[in-house]
Amino acid sequence: MTPELHNSRFLKAVRREPVDTTPIWIMRQAGRYLPEYMAVRNKVTFLELCKTPELAAEVTLTAQRVLGVDAAILFADLLPILQPMGFDLEYAKGEGPVIHNPIRETSDLDRVRAVEDVNELSYVFDAVKLIRRDLPGDIPLLGFCGAPFTLASYAIEGGSSRHYENTKAMMYRDRGAWKSLMDCLVRSLVDYANAQVEAGVQAIQIFDSWAGCLSPSDYREYVMPHTKALVDGIQGAPVINFLTGNPSLLPLVKESGGDVIGIDWRIDLKDAWNIVGHDVAVQGNMDPVILFAEIEEIKKRARMVLDAAEGRPGHIFNLGHGVMPGLDPDHVKALVQFVHDEGV
Amino acid sequence: MTPELHNSRFLKAVRREPVDTTPIWIMRQAGRYLPEYMAVRNKVTFLELCKTPELAAEVTLTAQRVLGVDAAILFADLLPILQPMGFDLEYAKGEGPVIHNPIRETSDLDRVRAVEDVNELSYVFDAVKLIRRDLPGDIPLLGFCGAPFTLASYAIEGGSSRHYENTKAMMYRDRGAWKSLMDCLVRSLVDYANAQVEAGVQAIQIFDSWAGCLSPSDYREYVMPHTKALVDGIQGAPVINFLTGNPSLLPLVKESGGDVIGIDWRIDLKDAWNIVGHDVAVQGNMDPVILFAEIEEIKKRARMVLDAAEGRPGHIFNLGHGVMPGLDPDHVKALVQFVHDEGV
Repeated sequence: MTPELHNSRFLKAVRREPVDTTPIWIMRQAGRYLPEYMAVRNKVTFLELCKTPELAAEVTLTAQRVLGVDAAILFADLLPILQPMGFDLEYAKGEGPVIHNPIRETSDLDRVRAVEDVNELSYVFDAVKLIRRDLPGDIPLLGFCGAPFTLASYAIEGGSSRHYENTKAMMYRDRGAWKSLMDCLVRSLVDYANAQVEAGVQAIQIFDSWAGCLSPSDYREYVMPHTKALVDGIQGAPVINFLTGNPSLLPLVKESGGDVIGIDWRIDLKDAWNIVGHDVAVQGNMDPVILFAEIEEIKKRARMVLDAAEGRPGHIFNLGHGVMPGLDPDHVKALVQFVHDEGV
Repeated sequence: MTPELHNSRFLKAVRREPVDTTPIWIMRQAGRYLPEYMAVRNKVTFLELCKTPELAAEVTLTAQRVLGVDAAILFADLLPILQPMGFDLEYAKGEGPVIHNPIRETSDLDRVRAVEDVNELSYVFDAVKLIRRDLPGDIPLLGFCGAPFTLASYAIEGGSSRHYENTKAMMYRDRGAWKSLMDCLVRSLVDYANAQVEAGVQAIQIFDSWAGCLSPSDYREYVMPHTKALVDGIQGAPVINFLTGNPSLLPLVKESGGDVIGIDWRIDLKDAWNIVGHDVAVQGNMDPVILFAEIEEIKKRARMVLDAAEGRPGHIFNLGHGVMPGLDPDHVKALVQFVHDEGV
């Protein structure tokens, strides 16, 4: 790593070193609210965009540039890794991802395999190389992957879900099948994340988007060991461990590891940092919907987040979840500017 | 109230008095998983069922009898109160409730009014009277209503929602409009709940099904004063205050009032009781999806909930949310039996 990258605002905050001002990036910053993104997206399908390194690089770089954020995040999706594992994935128009052959019976596991050759996902690593080549020298590039629970629930439910009843039913009814699926996912995810690091990302964020549906005892028993195995398996780059939807799980997220713990908006950031401990950095946590408010209100709320994180280095400003379609991009830009002006 | 009702297992637990065993009832116990319910439901629409006191009474009484639970809960729905407030409500097949004229602009509030004459909802009070007449003398009947935030979000989104962006946008952008809508809802809900008490229910449960999407600071600022006004306005019966989806809000739920605090499964029940304080009773908190597991697993999980509540009177066993369609009713019956056998 270059000294310039090592001393970037973002990576200093990851290491809990003092910074000139609070670093900020925005989950899903290269998203549908950005006209520059839509111009590219309208020419191809979502999966084509993910699988064309030049286009994935373009939307990644553009978002970082127009927003002026302190990190770029690879444009990619959580689910394509399921394809080389034997799942038939489609992004149906207006419906989100659909898996046509979800796991419902234990016997369905026979057709699931760990990713044998991570280069089946080479389009991702090619995008990383293109982005890293063109990104400013002081801007880290983040890679990411799904957490094993979130990927398992997609693989079992066949798409998004309200109650995750099939996923939990497999957990409760067939401990062996559950462990086998989670092991298979973790092996694949470790290889995938490490290949991103090797291709040039400076950190990996793990997204556990759905694990908030779990009780603390279920998370501890069925999920934490697998998330921990993933975190432990990622080598050569810091890990941001992000789970959304249940603040009660934060002590267990901390226990599962990571240099930075992602915090959603459901809890006050100060309380969250006290819970996870000051030996890790934190990332978050403004409610994404606040970006629909007037700019003055957005600033007021950003101020509250900055105040909640005050007193020690190690805060990376972000939303508590992905930025939403339909937003005015100027609101996002105003937020970035405000955090840079008013941050620690 | 008769001495028999006063000394019922359920009401003793509400008052945190010692009981012979832990009382249990199940949210949505008269639901689609029960063949006895479906036999009635198949003959009418959902709204007809809600509005025909004899049928609402029948499904209420049947569920209490076949499950052997310690309380009956009025069969009704959160949303029909919106009809006399000026909303065009429909239960579309397979889609859940739809409001055809949701509030989107401040000017839409001009057509919203508080319920002028609560007897526009007389079908509910007639059902209460029929149920109370035929319910065993030691079984309390629970009434219920939605919390103001949950009703406001239906009125604004026009149905269920993933991110509640319209609701929050109104909160953030037009404080006056938000307050006016919430005041209007609270006035209506207080009258509605008190009329249920007058008709014969022994307690009222408030359902805040969607407020878990809020940050603690938003809940405190925009919601808590209104929920508190509703709790304070309910006279002559204890209140169960139930919010699901965000354990961080529990201290504020406690502050908004209630004799019993409902706890969902996202937090350990012991931790939750410590947070809300031992001067209130608690209700909960098994993950409803556990009922899809084998009976032995269900018993193991029920044991964990009983253990978490041990040490003092004032626990009412329940799920952490409503029972789900597709379940084997024998699993629910086995849970009730187990809690009665093994409760404190």
